[in-house]
Amino acid sequence: MGFGLGYLLAKTDIISTSDHSSVVSINLFIALLCACIVIGRLLEENRWMNESITALAIGLCTGIVILLTSGGKSSHLLVFSEDLFFIYLLPPIIFNAGFQVKKKQFFRNFMTIMLFGAIGSLISFAIISFGAMNFFKKMNIGALEIGDYMAIGAIFSATDSVCTLQVLNQDETPLLYSLVFGEGVVNDATSVVLFNAIQRFDLSHINSSILLQFVGNFLHLFFTSTVLGVVTGLLSAYIIKKLYFGRHSTDREVALMMLMAYLSYMLAELFYLSAILTVFFCGIVMSHYTWHNVTESSRVTAKHAFATLSFVCEIFIFLYVGMDAMDIEKWRFVSDSPGTSVRVSLILMGLVLVGRAAFVFPLSFLSNLTKKSPYDRIGIKQQVTVWWAGLMRGAVSMALAYNKFTRAGHTKLRGNAIMITSTITVVLFSTVVFRLMAKPLVRVLLPSTKQLFSSMLSSEPTTPKSFTVPLLSNGHNSEPDLASYSVPCPTSLRMLLSTPSHTVHNYWRKFDNTFMRPVFGGRGFVPFVAGSPIEQSAHQLQ
Amino acid sequence: MGFGLGYLLAKTDIISTSDHSSVVSINLFIALLCACIVIGRLLEENRWMNESITALAIGLCTGIVILLTSGGKSSHLLVFSEDLFFIYLLPPIIFNAGFQVKKKQFFRNFMTIMLFGAIGSLISFAIISFGAMNFFKKMNIGALEIGDYMAIGAIFSATDSVCTLQVLNQDETPLLYSLVFGEGVVNDATSVVLFNAIQRFDLSHINSSILLQFVGNFLHLFFTSTVLGVVTGLLSAYIIKKLYFGRHSTDREVALMMLMAYLSYMLAELFYLSAILTVFFCGIVMSHYTWHNVTESSRVTAKHAFATLSFVCEIFIFLYVGMDAMDIEKWRFVSDSPGTSVRVSLILMGLVLVGRAAFVFPLSFLSNLTKKSPYDRIGIKQQVTVWWAGLMRGAVSMALAYNKFTRAGHTKLRGNAIMITSTITVVLFSTVVFRLMAKPLVRVLLPSTKQLFSSMLSSEPTTPKSFTVPLLSNGHNSEPDLASYSVPCPTSLRMLLSTPSHTVHNYWRKFDNTFMRPVFGGRGFVPFVAGSPIEQSAHQLQ
Repeated sequence: MGFGLGYLLAKTDIISTSDHSSVVSINLFIALLCACIVIGRLLEENRWMNESITALAIGLCTGIVILLTSGGKSSHLLVFSEDLFFIYLLPPIIFNAGFQVKKKQFFRNFMTIMLFGAIGSLISFAIISFGAMNFFKKMNIGALEIGDYMAIGAIFSATDSVCTLQVLNQDETPLLYSLVFGEGVVNDATSVVLFNAIQRFDLSHINSSILLQFVGNFLHLFFTSTVLGVVTGLLSAYIIKKLYFGRHSTDREVALMMLMAYLSYMLAELFYLSAILTVFFCGIVMSHYTWHNVTESSRVTAKHAFATLSFVCEIFIFLYVGMDAMDIEKWRFVSDSPGTSVRVSLILMGLVLVGRAAFVFPLSFLSNLTKKSPYDRIGIKQQVTVWWAGLMRGAVSMALAYNKFTRAGHTKLRGNAIMITSTITVVLFSTVVFRLMAKPLVRVLLPSTKQLFSSMLSSEPTTPKSFTVPLLSNGHNSEPDLASYSVPCPTSLRMLLSTPSHTVHNYWRKFDNTFMRPVFGGRGFVPFVAGSPIEQSAHQLQ
Repeated sequence: MGFGLGYLLAKTDIISTSDHSSVVSINLFIALLCACIVIGRLLEENRWMNESITALAIGLCTGIVILLTSGGKSSHLLVFSEDLFFIYLLPPIIFNAGFQVKKKQFFRNFMTIMLFGAIGSLISFAIISFGAMNFFKKMNIGALEIGDYMAIGAIFSATDSVCTLQVLNQDETPLLYSLVFGEGVVNDATSVVLFNAIQRFDLSHINSSILLQFVGNFLHLFFTSTVLGVVTGLLSAYIIKKLYFGRHSTDREVALMMLMAYLSYMLAELFYLSAILTVFFCGIVMSHYTWHNVTESSRVTAKHAFATLSFVCEIFIFLYVGMDAMDIEKWRFVSDSPGTSVRVSLILMGLVLVGRAAFVFPLSFLSNLTKKSPYDRIGIKQQVTVWWAGLMRGAVSMALAYNKFTRAGHTKLRGNAIMITSTITVVLFSTVVFRLMAKPLVRVLLPSTKQLFSSMLSSEPTTPKSFTVPLLSNGHNSEPDLASYSVPCPTSLRMLLSTPSHTVHNYWRKFDNTFMRPVFGGRGFVPFVAGSPIEQSAHQLQ
């Protein structure tokens, strides 16, 4: 352990102030990030653009400029670092997603989400692996083994939850949003588990016992990851409730929330669990309990600081992927046979499309069988939307591909180089083209979206925004959480008409109010704090 | 440049997820950070403790535990990384200090601060260098050259601005706070400049031309660093004012502020300027202009997010210094002759005390000569407080010492090892003992502090806190900035009695209102935005 710490901090020596070229690079990178925000904002009126695509484009341009200035010599402009991605950039994004997710929608569709995320990913994985094996064996792309084909399956069944967040609007299509995003998170976990399992298990002879072991492994992983996230979240709620009662300090509260969220992620990494799942559930629990135990300024700060961090990390990833795509080393192998590379990319893209269709439609059918109310069913147009919204492949695929097919960012084998360049192609193409087509598609397929979904499917109380403290009016305070039923709300009558699916919810609400909230706090269960901003604003409003 | 980027990101590969011991270390470190916050809070009633000392203590304990578990074998538990400190931990702290500083006090005492920070540091540097040369030459501590002695002078004239922030209270003793803290920032810059100059200039024959060159270098550095900070700050204000007018987005605004602040720091590093000065002035400008151009939720978020970041970085530093102090390698050299090491540390501590006394009292006398109003003069008791509050040596000293006396955190020479251990001893001793003594000292010397200073020295309007939006009531909104004179305030009559020293201020205010604010925004100069929280809250209050 002593060694570990030493090692860590010796390696933490990222850049040396004396190492001037690194300072140049950091400056360039930060300036580009700023440029992405500013240009993204300026192009906002343009419906085809947003910060992410801007970042991708700026990354590509910068890559080209660097390539030209270095005279094509520097083979490594930007090495994709898996760890930078998994340790620093992904946690804030997923945590924020959990923190801001509409919890009621998410839990209402929990079974469907699990069906899509776990079983669906397995189907997609099987189809892509099998397809790749059949197609690529006939092509001359170097030596690939069965493990490689299965890895390809795992790599390309990982949807990009970051991208997905931007295609659908949580307020306009809450059902689809929670389905696609929830599926994305579970799917990320499935892909990573699959990928690790492929590298660990002996794949030469697959039999039923290995398969059972594999399923057991997955279930264990899913359960323990969730529990770890929930426990860390509850712990943070308990600590803040006990510790800061009556003497709040915004900086300390927010710092503790941030550190504990990150701790949950790293603990999951420590125990080889799915850190993505853990931090996602930690975010959900924190927004349900911890967030209500802090002062109002802490709430505003936490909500926006997490969103800001997540936003910066997203732009960082897209900029990074854009720049990395210009890495010349891998393209050299490909330039000998551009046709092969194009064909490989096209085949992969086709497999992604087929693999996703092969589970979205059948599983939607299955899911619809269990729903009694026609409103809760997933219509064919919505199925198409779900299918399309999950086609994007992103940084998770990149990270897995680099892990599998390169050694410290370098590759010498032709087959591996082609797989890397194809991954980059698929990621870029799906991110740009598929995503750009997604918005018009949603508009065509679900024209009445705004009215239909927000009135029928989401039964959020149309929160009395104007009565709450002004600063909270843009979202979080009005977020419909698991206990919003306890507040008498205009739509509660309609709720009563569709009782069956809400029985579990009712039980949970009772349990929550009786056992959980008195211990961990939460909305309406935090004791009155004299002199707190709530009180002040109440006085002013009188 | 291409290489630079590649190099940077190859090195960014800090920890590998496969490298399990690093994950253990990160977990341990984050858990310790959480523990520091929680325990620091629990011990808050105890007037001797706070989060920083708790962090230091926990760091020391952890160091000992790791030392014991590794059986004393691991010579490097935690290597102090200069770059981690200068690139990641210091910028948020200094930026936040600039962002939250009471600008009026700071600028009113600008000349005194410069006198203390620049001339004072030089005096202190000369005395410590000269003293060390005389004392250490007679002792058997290995080969030290004239450059080494001068480096010792620079290392130990760098006061710890982080520590200083915690000794004095900005609201209770605004004059002293601004003096000591402002001096600390300038002093940091002076020390770093001195230190670099010593390593660059030929020291074997110092003559007047080199001295002049040196002074010119310092003035140039000070001026350009300040200008860079101001320009970056103004740029951020301009961009946000132009870009987000009428369609604000909290995440983007806060992200842009953060990135531009960090950019200013890194740009200063790029041009070999004093990044500390740059980011400090960038913070001041951002709080004067940019902060007023954003929405209210952005204001709350920015204020608290910066404070939170700064808070976490401070604890990180103290935890880090505490753990590093247990690094066994250096102590091995010292264990042969404990007497020598103790004597060296005591001599250095004495020199620090004398060196600071030698400029605080004479320069205070000089400064008092220029003040006409007796209220603006620095009394003898206040001089003692200023002297004592700046005695702490902290992470800047550590970083400079490691830079000078080790190579990548390792040292083999006896003299160098003794200097490192002495630095650690002085830092620990001054941080714990001098700081603990500072609070009672302030209480004894300035018993009527609260009444005296807040009524006479600070002429802030006793802000109508209760009238402002509740969430802003704890500080920033009521921060007395350069233009608060324009608001009719209860103390403005008293202000008129002490006109002379405020003439510059009046000119600045006119200039600010006529030229700066119309372009860059600022309080009262941001156009009315329909639907903004200000409007909402105003409506509610009616």
